[in-house]
Amino acid sequence: MSAPVLAVRRVGIDTWRENVVFLHRDCAVVRAEGFQALSKVRVQANGQGIVAVLNVVDDSCIVGPGELGLSEDAFARLGVPPGHPVHIDHAEPPSSIAALHRKIAGERLGREDLAAIVQDIAAARYSKIELAAFVVATNQFELDRDEVVHLTEAMIAVGHRLDWRRQIGAGPVVDKHCIGGIPGNRTSMLVVPIVAAHGMTCPKTSSRAITSPAGTADTMAVLADVELPLQRLEEIVRATHGCLAWGGTADLSPADDILISVERPLGIDSPGQMVASILSKKIAAGSTHLVLDIPVGPTAKVRSMAAAQRLKRLFEFVAAHLGLHLDAVITDGRQPIGRGIGPVLEARDVMQVLQNDPAAPQDLRQKALRLAGRVIEFDPDVRGGEGFRIARDILDSGRALACMNAIIDAQGRRTPPPPGERVHEVCATADGVVTGIDNLRLARIARMTGAPQVAGAGVDLLLKLGDAVRAGQPLYRLHASHEADLAFARRMAEEGSAYTVGDAKDLPPDFVTGGGDLG
Amino acid sequence: MSAPVLAVRRVGIDTWRENVVFLHRDCAVVRAEGFQALSKVRVQANGQGIVAVLNVVDDSCIVGPGELGLSEDAFARLGVPPGHPVHIDHAEPPSSIAALHRKIAGERLGREDLAAIVQDIAAARYSKIELAAFVVATNQFELDRDEVVHLTEAMIAVGHRLDWRRQIGAGPVVDKHCIGGIPGNRTSMLVVPIVAAHGMTCPKTSSRAITSPAGTADTMAVLADVELPLQRLEEIVRATHGCLAWGGTADLSPADDILISVERPLGIDSPGQMVASILSKKIAAGSTHLVLDIPVGPTAKVRSMAAAQRLKRLFEFVAAHLGLHLDAVITDGRQPIGRGIGPVLEARDVMQVLQNDPAAPQDLRQKALRLAGRVIEFDPDVRGGEGFRIARDILDSGRALACMNAIIDAQGRRTPPPPGERVHEVCATADGVVTGIDNLRLARIARMTGAPQVAGAGVDLLLKLGDAVRAGQPLYRLHASHEADLAFARRMAEEGSAYTVGDAKDLPPDFVTGGGDLG
Repeated sequence: MSAPVLAVRRVGIDTWRENVVFLHRDCAVVRAEGFQALSKVRVQANGQGIVAVLNVVDDSCIVGPGELGLSEDAFARLGVPPGHPVHIDHAEPPSSIAALHRKIAGERLGREDLAAIVQDIAAARYSKIELAAFVVATNQFELDRDEVVHLTEAMIAVGHRLDWRRQIGAGPVVDKHCIGGIPGNRTSMLVVPIVAAHGMTCPKTSSRAITSPAGTADTMAVLADVELPLQRLEEIVRATHGCLAWGGTADLSPADDILISVERPLGIDSPGQMVASILSKKIAAGSTHLVLDIPVGPTAKVRSMAAAQRLKRLFEFVAAHLGLHLDAVITDGRQPIGRGIGPVLEARDVMQVLQNDPAAPQDLRQKALRLAGRVIEFDPDVRGGEGFRIARDILDSGRALACMNAIIDAQGRRTPPPPGERVHEVCATADGVVTGIDNLRLARIARMTGAPQVAGAGVDLLLKLGDAVRAGQPLYRLHASHEADLAFARRMAEEGSAYTVGDAKDLPPDFVTGGGDLG
Repeated sequence: MSAPVLAVRRVGIDTWRENVVFLHRDCAVVRAEGFQALSKVRVQANGQGIVAVLNVVDDSCIVGPGELGLSEDAFARLGVPPGHPVHIDHAEPPSSIAALHRKIAGERLGREDLAAIVQDIAAARYSKIELAAFVVATNQFELDRDEVVHLTEAMIAVGHRLDWRRQIGAGPVVDKHCIGGIPGNRTSMLVVPIVAAHGMTCPKTSSRAITSPAGTADTMAVLADVELPLQRLEEIVRATHGCLAWGGTADLSPADDILISVERPLGIDSPGQMVASILSKKIAAGSTHLVLDIPVGPTAKVRSMAAAQRLKRLFEFVAAHLGLHLDAVITDGRQPIGRGIGPVLEARDVMQVLQNDPAAPQDLRQKALRLAGRVIEFDPDVRGGEGFRIARDILDSGRALACMNAIIDAQGRRTPPPPGERVHEVCATADGVVTGIDNLRLARIARMTGAPQVAGAGVDLLLKLGDAVRAGQPLYRLHASHEADLAFARRMAEEGSAYTVGDAKDLPPDFVTGGGDLG
């Protein structure tokens, strides 16, 4: 006896990494099987199977009673053509759901439990509801350190893993990563050419912006092609020691990509999930040595020095267990880095620093040198404390610029568009000193201008913390390409200021020692 | 300046209590606003507004670039005709999301927090992902007793509330409810006519089955119409003192209906959520006195006497704070009650008991008398310990049957269909004694036969715990109307037996004292 047969139909709805199937309410299978909306069903064709969530449809234009509609994700994953016969029946819950329930009840999970959960997630056997349950259950009873190790291992195991030893032999493969949250913080585009000019292998893959106004991949895309096949990346890294590419094509941590699809709308980014997400992607990308930037500040992701230290120790524990050399650096996250926020404006800042332009933002230069110095100290031939000086020499001599130009040419040079020509300046309403800049609010305003989809859109900061200001003087400038975008961003800027102007004594404390030329 | 305008289109997809909107990927608004799949958007028309989750569509047959598609739920809630102009923009997160995040972080929530969350849930401002987060966060850090009181109050406040005092004056409005999980447990259909024949007001509203093979409303629907307007219910209760109707039309606890839509697929039913769900519906339905049945057994919802006592105390605490008189009774949940599982078979059992048929299942009769006796003892004129005898007299005298017939005639009598004519008997494979009957497995097998959608489908139990059996002797009989349903159910029954046959000494202990004629 066999399950009922339906004909596949592709339904052009993007369900964002969730497999959804559509059945007509009058479909005989719906009645016979007692399916309800949101039931999970198993779809089988040609010995292939997927698990999907059911939506019941009343409109025969979407699916007819003899058809099974598949969302774009489900269609791609099942991999049979329209009209192909499929069988469906009730899906058994994924086998790892029992472990999920134990986690919800507050139990500690073992290596096998987390491996099973991550395998089911990567195979798209979890519904959005089940993913949300996992994210909340592991957020709340914060995963212990061993659980984070197991989660990270499991995430690496289900993805593709790059290996650069064939290209570069036994030397270190270095990388630099920031946990995020600070607009304009484009140090990777400086660290990579400095470190590559020093002769270290730094094949950097980055993400596009998810909730921020620009990711490194968005900003690099202003200067060069970033969507490159793996084989081409290997050639570029062999020739220049570095690259600055988009990591999305490499399928490095597919379970993480799926988890992010619910962490983002929930606004949850707990320490355990952050560590597993970042380290799984770095290890899968073949990195052996990583400098990690943890900014701390009142509107950064990490808001106290104690929390930053806890997070640092967790990163160190997990990295050590997975054989990754990690140097985690806590940095000043009280305000954006550089001046520009948005792809074109940030690319301008980066190129000014590389060109030793006197107008270049010094905070971006100093931070990039500090991080590049730490990466260079992974070189066994460099003495501790020498890294910063070496990095500065490489930058000042123009060798970093030459290396960046080589990388840009190798990836495929592009001519940057100009900043958005529709501008509006937001001005101070009182005299005083800039005592606060809200990273979150500025990021939202910059997104409203159209960044990162509109590369030239964004915000240009005219003053930074500690600068004196007079009433009526511009604080920052909005750039947009469309009048409606400018108006939206302007309205948001007027609803609540991203800047606080007050007395110099109200400046927030700099948690991180010093500022200037530190090693 | 105003937000962009689109034309409403109704998209015939049942998204099961979640507002979903569909925008074409080429829609100018998607690009300008930086919308992504699963973004939350605010839709406004005529001063009305809804919040919905966005699905991006690539097929102009579903929505065109100038249209905004609305799922059935969203269309009904917005309430404007197709083609009507609407504005959309980014939805601010519901104001209660901050409280949700505090709960996820393990904090205790106050009355205002829970009121705000429940209001946002009832207004469909939570996505499925956010609902799942709430369900897990309140499951895990089990809500404390005060939080359950506040949650229950909040659920009552957002729904419609019935008031029977106009019909019946100041006397008690009694009800009987079971927390569920025991197939065949149709005592309400006996308790209501017994209690109503005693002269107490018992306007019972019940649910249809969600995951079980029959709810009271499904079984009553075999004998009478159960979908009645409120005014008609009031007339029936005035005439007969009781009714057995479907509660779905009354909108008694809309937030609970929405929460159930994620609790069900997640398989989560924590004590706090169960108490808030049941008591909010009972109080909203106007009940002043409630007898609550808490079955305990190895395959029941509650699996130990200690857990049953904890749950009982939580029900009592919350009921006391909300002014509801509650008598919670822990009962034997080791096996199904009665013989039939499925609407027609259960209705047959109920009518046999009412008719004092010698073939009537004695366990169903005894349990119903015990619960009816406890309800009757809410009558201030009845002495403690007298309730059981009074209930038995009413049943034995035929007055309960007469009252049931009056209720059936008043609601609109129906002729029950026969049990499904396609049958298959599942037989023992060894000699011995029935030492275990799996409630969960039997419920799933019964659903596979087609129950409750096919009223005559289900399972008829031929043996119960403690009965002697020989190899080859039938244990239970499957009834179905369709050959495919019978085959599915048969396959499931063969995959794993719902019965355990062994030695009499292996019988599970009866947690609940005694059995026979208890008060």
